[in-house]
Amino acid sequence: MGKKRNDLHIIAFDADDTLWDNEIFFREVEEKFGAMLENYLPAHSVHRALLKTEIDNIAIYGYGIKAFMLSMIETAIHVSDHTLSPKVIEDIIALGKDMLDKPVTLLPEAEEVLQELSGRYKLVVATKGDLLDQERKLKKSGLMPYFHHIEIMTEKAEPDYEKLIKHLDITPGQFLMVGNSLKSDVRPVLNIGGHGIHIPYHTTWVYEALETGITHENFHQVSQLSELLNLL
Amino acid sequence: MGKKRNDLHIIAFDADDTLWDNEIFFREVEEKFGAMLENYLPAHSVHRALLKTEIDNIAIYGYGIKAFMLSMIETAIHVSDHTLSPKVIEDIIALGKDMLDKPVTLLPEAEEVLQELSGRYKLVVATKGDLLDQERKLKKSGLMPYFHHIEIMTEKAEPDYEKLIKHLDITPGQFLMVGNSLKSDVRPVLNIGGHGIHIPYHTTWVYEALETGITHENFHQVSQLSELLNLL
Repeated sequence: MGKKRNDLHIIAFDADDTLWDNEIFFREVEEKFGAMLENYLPAHSVHRALLKTEIDNIAIYGYGIKAFMLSMIETAIHVSDHTLSPKVIEDIIALGKDMLDKPVTLLPEAEEVLQELSGRYKLVVATKGDLLDQERKLKKSGLMPYFHHIEIMTEKAEPDYEKLIKHLDITPGQFLMVGNSLKSDVRPVLNIGGHGIHIPYHTTWVYEALETGITHENFHQVSQLSELLNLL
Repeated sequence: MGKKRNDLHIIAFDADDTLWDNEIFFREVEEKFGAMLENYLPAHSVHRALLKTEIDNIAIYGYGIKAFMLSMIETAIHVSDHTLSPKVIEDIIALGKDMLDKPVTLLPEAEEVLQELSGRYKLVVATKGDLLDQERKLKKSGLMPYFHHIEIMTEKAEPDYEKLIKHLDITPGQFLMVGNSLKSDVRPVLNIGGHGIHIPYHTTWVYEALETGITHENFHQVSQLSELLNLL
């Protein structure tokens, strides 16, 4: 953050794959989903069909596990050309419900880093997805005491961050976003005058991985949460 | 509001069936859903099975149309004892997507009342359901200019209102909730010391209609939105 360090008021953390594991559960379920439909199509084609359905449905469903479940069901019916057994759809629903009840596994040193930073900045969670599911994970994580509140966003584009910063009653230069997606957590924040720190996660949803190679005076990349303490 | 009128700072409006029609679309879809499954069970038994699935799933899905869609699919598979054609499930998904794209019909004088009150109080929307869907309806409604912001709540019980009032930085006595559900909009707010105004809607989901006959000094009931102006 350099000379601007003292201007920072609020640090917003993405949650999924920044504070705890998330994408890995989607990948696991996608593997099982591919296997369920292997009588109709090879797994990689099933995955491609699912991705297309998901992206087509984002405008109407938004993000999160319920949207993912509905897109899997739609894809399964389509891939099987309406010959699917209802048992398979029941299995898809069971997979989704299981995702909604997963334990929360914190990424290394998440709690220590938040504890340290919460004494110096106001911390918030800024995340997409199902409201209920994100609140569930935050509760299970044990990290709630470190956050002032949670902001669930329908999208993470420039207008959404502008609205968030206005709601927080600060200037963009007083705002830092920390997350694993250059596309959703970093680029739009830099574009409106805020600060961004990228912490890559080992697995990124194709849809989020469209942006690479950012150079910007307000941008940093670190390899794990604990390195934040060297920057802030 | 009587002598306490001047203490009010913030009026929170429930949205669905308080500012615009909502429940009626669920009832219409339930009728169609019953008709789709009439080969398996009489419509009233299908409706009862669906209600049971919905209530069982609230803890994991929350409220809203995506939850409703997933519960319809689960119920249809169960009611048909796994003999359902995938075409029916595709039809259920189409019904749900249609609900997510409905025009917003304001209840009588909603805009006039909000316009008048927004000059004197800070107004917010306090609603359950899918975040994206509620934001969509608020945009379509044309009512956004009258509201300071929108609060999407996972539940509307006492702890949820306590959190909301704390977040708004006011006392319960400075808070008024206006809505069509005694159970969700009125009773919990009265219990924590706030004010409540009930505006019954002609159709109420069975799950929300469990509470009747409130007598409380902070409670009023009116038959339409425009009557708010006589009280406030």
